[in-house]
Amino acid sequence: MTFTYTISELEELHAFACGVARLAGNFLREEQVRRRRASALRTKEKQNSVDLVTSSDVAVEKMIRQSIQSRYPDHAFIGEESYSASKERRFLLEDGPTWIVDPIDGTVNMIHMFPMAAISIGWCINSIPTIGVVYAPFLGGTLYSAIYHPRGGAWLSEFGPCGPMTSLPLISPPPPLPGSTKGCLYVGEWGKDRRDHPGSLLNKRAANFLNMAAELGGRDGKGGMVHGIRSLGSATMDLVYVASGQADVMFEAGGCWEWDVCAGIAILLQTGGIVVDANPPEGLSKDDPIPMVCIGSRRYLAVRGCSKDAEGRSPRQQQEALVREVWRKTERIQSRR
Amino acid sequence: MTFTYTISELEELHAFACGVARLAGNFLREEQVRRRRASALRTKEKQNSVDLVTSSDVAVEKMIRQSIQSRYPDHAFIGEESYSASKERRFLLEDGPTWIVDPIDGTVNMIHMFPMAAISIGWCINSIPTIGVVYAPFLGGTLYSAIYHPRGGAWLSEFGPCGPMTSLPLISPPPPLPGSTKGCLYVGEWGKDRRDHPGSLLNKRAANFLNMAAELGGRDGKGGMVHGIRSLGSATMDLVYVASGQADVMFEAGGCWEWDVCAGIAILLQTGGIVVDANPPEGLSKDDPIPMVCIGSRRYLAVRGCSKDAEGRSPRQQQEALVREVWRKTERIQSRR
Repeated sequence: MTFTYTISELEELHAFACGVARLAGNFLREEQVRRRRASALRTKEKQNSVDLVTSSDVAVEKMIRQSIQSRYPDHAFIGEESYSASKERRFLLEDGPTWIVDPIDGTVNMIHMFPMAAISIGWCINSIPTIGVVYAPFLGGTLYSAIYHPRGGAWLSEFGPCGPMTSLPLISPPPPLPGSTKGCLYVGEWGKDRRDHPGSLLNKRAANFLNMAAELGGRDGKGGMVHGIRSLGSATMDLVYVASGQADVMFEAGGCWEWDVCAGIAILLQTGGIVVDANPPEGLSKDDPIPMVCIGSRRYLAVRGCSKDAEGRSPRQQQEALVREVWRKTERIQSRR
Repeated sequence: MTFTYTISELEELHAFACGVARLAGNFLREEQVRRRRASALRTKEKQNSVDLVTSSDVAVEKMIRQSIQSRYPDHAFIGEESYSASKERRFLLEDGPTWIVDPIDGTVNMIHMFPMAAISIGWCINSIPTIGVVYAPFLGGTLYSAIYHPRGGAWLSEFGPCGPMTSLPLISPPPPLPGSTKGCLYVGEWGKDRRDHPGSLLNKRAANFLNMAAELGGRDGKGGMVHGIRSLGSATMDLVYVASGQADVMFEAGGCWEWDVCAGIAILLQTGGIVVDANPPEGLSKDDPIPMVCIGSRRYLAVRGCSKDAEGRSPRQQQEALVREVWRKTERIQSRR
């Protein structure tokens, strides 16, 4: 069954989600002040010393879930902390209205007070991310959001709810892609799995970074000579910078879940970006169109929106060419639920 | 000869530098709006496609230099763009009052509209960074600054000149260091030199990142198991996050100059941090005190300020122990002027 929402219903959902994100952000800012006084934040190790959950994650998720359940009691809810606490490991998104929430993406950053931490609130209908709100309360109150719809939009709001609001992508129409990895701003993460053996996730991630950075012709032909590599410690922020046109490519595999990307994907789709599997799908030939990734894939390769280039290639043609080049220049990464 | 300035003279210099930085930041924000309209920014390659200079760098440096020269005509001035345009390659800091300015640190970021770009205004006396102002106009108008003096201070100002101002370090007194690289937030950059051959700067940087990320015991005992690695594309922002206590360690060698670090060092010194050579100085024995780096060193290893730890080790003891551990776990990097 297909669900239909009107643009005004979507606008209401968007305004609600922005409000909830700001409330949760205010809570985090206040907590930061309390923490400055207490000089300590209780943390609990999840898997190892890098995978931390703070009491704030749990409190913020509860706050967001309660707001949603009291306003939209018939909507489904998927949250990072409730997922981690349960035994269920399948990807459970159905076609009905579903909120997908990460209360704090960038928990390690939060603990260090490094400002790349975000509240990510996404809403799906027919399994498609349709409302996305990403609020970074420690970055001058920066809020990115979108309604993915022909009559929707995407916005960057700065300096809090009364500050200026800019349409996304920031450059509109967005410039063509650089034509190859050379010239791209590439974002990716080192992740939490630090095991060191040949073929380990960590070693593959390191090889991929080095390939992307190296001069053209370097690394046995895998050199990508990107303009720059950025690692922020927040997949949500990585993706949102691609969605806004402030970076070109985001590559993330093995350390990322649907709540990290759902809101960002809604913004990306509305600004003309694409997100596909970070590994080439089996059997895909060089002329096949590249399918959109399932948001539970755990492997994501996102490319920003762009305009027709000087050779007349469409945005999609440029994006797919860049995806295939990144695939050629990176190691395959397996990930599991 | 030693120069002496009173605290009120320093306060006046600090207020002046903050004002100049904000003016320059406003210029850059306006230029970003113009650019959104024009959808293009003229760039000129300096060394290769990653080393870009925009017309904004040159215009902003001129604006800052003129402001300084009309207010303080007898002060010396060192700026990135005037240095690059001249043939002089020596490090020329003398003991008199000297401004050291990077009009835009993070030019590649600026070109992509990635928000980690900063105006960095430092002022030295007796060759010591004493006033530092780092303004990030695209990060919600975040301004970090300090007066390095017993009666000075260090501050984070958010949301523009009328917004809230917080003393640095953000947590005060700052927590002890984690006791080893395990638990540290580590910032460093991939840089602009992308040549790929054994022992190249790029390969050393990659090895250092991998060492820091790997589990303890991994990488032939060099595994550092840091909490996270962050690369922002701006050495100025990297350093300022260590100075504010929002990151623990900054390692940068080979891609960094005095104008990238002067302002950040003034803030770091005031908050109790240290900055030393990223390579161990020749002949330094394990009990020698580690000397402060010369700001023209081009190799910097900065560690945040901290309080006495549970074992009663002083801040300096913890910082030096961490420096020696990072030295053990990283490759030597040569850099030249």
